Amino acid sequence: MNQLTDYITKSKESTLEELNEFLAIKSISTKSEFASDVRDCARFIADKCKTIGMQNTVVYETKKHPIVYSEFHVDDSKPTVLIYGHYDVQPPEPLDLWESDPFKATIRGEYIYARGVSDDKGQVYCHIKAIEAYLAVHKTLPVNIKLIIEGEEEIGSPNLAEFLKKHQTMLKSDTAVISDTPMINRDLPALCFSLRGMVYAEITVTGPNKDLHSGQFGGVIQNPIQALASIIAKLKDDEDRVTIPGFYDDVLSLTSQEEIYLNAVPLSKDNYLDDIGVNEFATSDEDAIAKKLWAEPTLDCNGICGGYTQKGAKTIIPSQASAKISMRLVANQDPYKIQEQFKTYIKSITPRGVTVDINIHNLAHPAKLSLETPYIHAACEAYKTVFGVSPQFVGEGGTIPVVADFKQILGIDTVMMGFNCPDDCIHSPNERFLVANFFKGIHTSLEFLSRVGSI
Amino acid sequence: MNQLTDYITKSKESTLEELNEFLAIKSISTKSEFASDVRDCARFIADKCKTIGMQNTVVYETKKHPIVYSEFHVDDSKPTVLIYGHYDVQPPEPLDLWESDPFKATIRGEYIYARGVSDDKGQVYCHIKAIEAYLAVHKTLPVNIKLIIEGEEEIGSPNLAEFLKKHQTMLKSDTAVISDTPMINRDLPALCFSLRGMVYAEITVTGPNKDLHSGQFGGVIQNPIQALASIIAKLKDDEDRVTIPGFYDDVLSLTSQEEIYLNAVPLSKDNYLDDIGVNEFATSDEDAIAKKLWAEPTLDCNGICGGYTQKGAKTIIPSQASAKISMRLVANQDPYKIQEQFKTYIKSITPRGVTVDINIHNLAHPAKLSLETPYIHAACEAYKTVFGVSPQFVGEGGTIPVVADFKQILGIDTVMMGFNCPDDCIHSPNERFLVANFFKGIHTSLEFLSRVGSI
Repeated sequence: MNQLTDYITKSKESTLEELNEFLAIKSISTKSEFASDVRDCARFIADKCKTIGMQNTVVYETKKHPIVYSEFHVDDSKPTVLIYGHYDVQPPEPLDLWESDPFKATIRGEYIYARGVSDDKGQVYCHIKAIEAYLAVHKTLPVNIKLIIEGEEEIGSPNLAEFLKKHQTMLKSDTAVISDTPMINRDLPALCFSLRGMVYAEITVTGPNKDLHSGQFGGVIQNPIQALASIIAKLKDDEDRVTIPGFYDDVLSLTSQEEIYLNAVPLSKDNYLDDIGVNEFATSDEDAIAKKLWAEPTLDCNGICGGYTQKGAKTIIPSQASAKISMRLVANQDPYKIQEQFKTYIKSITPRGVTVDINIHNLAHPAKLSLETPYIHAACEAYKTVFGVSPQFVGEGGTIPVVADFKQILGIDTVMMGFNCPDDCIHSPNERFLVANFFKGIHTSLEFLSRVGSI
Repeated sequence: MNQLTDYITKSKESTLEELNEFLAIKSISTKSEFASDVRDCARFIADKCKTIGMQNTVVYETKKHPIVYSEFHVDDSKPTVLIYGHYDVQPPEPLDLWESDPFKATIRGEYIYARGVSDDKGQVYCHIKAIEAYLAVHKTLPVNIKLIIEGEEEIGSPNLAEFLKKHQTMLKSDTAVISDTPMINRDLPALCFSLRGMVYAEITVTGPNKDLHSGQFGGVIQNPIQALASIIAKLKDDEDRVTIPGFYDDVLSLTSQEEIYLNAVPLSKDNYLDDIGVNEFATSDEDAIAKKLWAEPTLDCNGICGGYTQKGAKTIIPSQASAKISMRLVANQDPYKIQEQFKTYIKSITPRGVTVDINIHNLAHPAKLSLETPYIHAACEAYKTVFGVSPQFVGEGGTIPVVADFKQILGIDTVMMGFNCPDDCIHSPNERFLVANFFKGIHTSLEFLSRVGSI
């Protein structure tokens, strides 16, 4: 490992320069005006794979944003590791809250600040640099590698499942590894055994065919904003539970081992709420926080808009109001079944005098993973070597749709081995990644691949 | 009257050109970036008053937008009529729904289309042209005239009451007249005996100090949009009545004469809802529509905004969400008392985990007027002469704050004698005014002033 360590140490400056170049590309997948930036970003990764000596690098077209594939074949007797990551990012808005340009990576103190540095470009780059170092030093790799870096994760990976189905043979592997989940904190790593799925809907309430004077019509016409508010208010009860009939029917209970793992995770007001400036949880049951986050489904309104929203006062009853609503699902909820329950319920609670349209943006299956595999063991050892401590086993409240797809289509489990922190402000202004943990990520990837090579 | 009719007929083209010039000025009072346009508009009116031979024309400064004052003194033995109007307009948004430029008046079919043509620039211009014609033909007027045209009506006239108090002596009059209320339809005029007052508030709900990843926090953190929705949903019950404790306490019952007037107004689904594309009223009590609009208070949400509102999906729990909420009041509700009841109630229904700020944009008293005055009689006769039919007595759902101020500060009642129509799309895209009724308005003003001169 000394030669590898030397290589990484010596190339520190150029590594950060390359990462900055990667971060500067505005690969915002949800906005069509950035489609060519997304494409540039795919090309950047593909070029990098070629440069470091990977084989058969191809930029695959999809219906929307391309998927980068690359591989390195050592020997049929070696295990094959499928590394997955995503090169697309969330929109940076609200821009005025950023302390530096979201697309010009800036180091301040211990952190690199940029959109996507933590989710997920920085973590993707840990694996790329690990492979580069190993190939540079040993001219080969300890395992066979297959790499998929996609550009649609932030919009729910709508074209990835089809890609996996089409290229099942090419992608045949023994395990997948993804670095897109957080550690417990900067010093304590975590391996994740569950991911929430997703139903993301947009509902639009329409009343009159134009904005009306609220004096001339107020009191006799249904107001679309108030109709929308009453619909949203009926989606959760006072105990913060989702009220859609049948919503919880298929939720799997935790095993006693999983309960033990979750209870061991230190989640409290102090370490979870202080940093975000909130005084209390939405639920009064504070002992159940880890369970609520990782083993229970939920529903959040992600955006709402209607009527006059600029400065000052305008007295109208607006024609329309709309809201974006996402549901996070857990095993074994089926997103297709949940979207139907959602639609049926919304229709049933729509007040008189307005109509409602429901548009589904994306769907993703939840996932639950086995912890009893040699690959999980290799990941534990890799973490222990680099961070000096065993990882905790946790759930993840977010959604990485591909994990369910890997299981279902390729028949493999995924090692979710992340290097970022909960306070990295992913999806928020001033997203950041610890410089130290970025480099520890490279080392951990090397340790993991080497250990899997000895299985 | 023949000479006057000739004058108006001959100057038809130039009158429309002047009106277009008036309408082209973007006097949007609620947006500070249009402050100099608002000022230009005040100067336009003042210049016009000077040109037609009015006396003592002054543009009075206020804390925000100026008030134009002008007068013509004939003889102390004549009654003095105070004509009030406003030269400011609502914002034109949403712009994409306008079929022609809102600030370039366009005649299509029987209508002039422009922002403010109906509310209230066109109606103000009826009186200006009536005075111009009378002065041109007779070199004097049938009554003493005092004219106040203000620039803050659409933002609740925050500086007008102070102006009235300060200039009480200068403004001493026998009656006021305002043309800013609609007729029943294009052929059937209306005199209005009640106006609703206003409390316009903006509430902002704040949760976390930044937008959060909805996966990492969803299920344990209160979502500000959902908190706001639950607050809004609790402001009205299923019967569409406002639920703020004490809200209806001071509402005055209608007199039996008023009931008769309101019941005589033809308001039904067919003539009220068809044009706006709505199938049913918010209330199931369809017989009470006129009463609900004109004699009952109400509450409407005029705008709402929070989280991600652009295209596509973004999975956040937003830091903030806000809504603009206006309450329309009726006699004898006190806007100062209502704003306190509103604030207290909002605080009491704010869910855990968020804070709420309430900002009051403006307050206005409701008004109820006597119909037993010689000025009302003169207005009836004027309408009958020009439109060939007696006006109906109606209420008005909108707010003209100055009417309560005229009563309270100057001790005079107001004749609310309007010329526009309910389907003129005021405050909406494609605001319009019938060309024919604009000219009938000029004639009716002349008839009214002449008749008051004989009282």
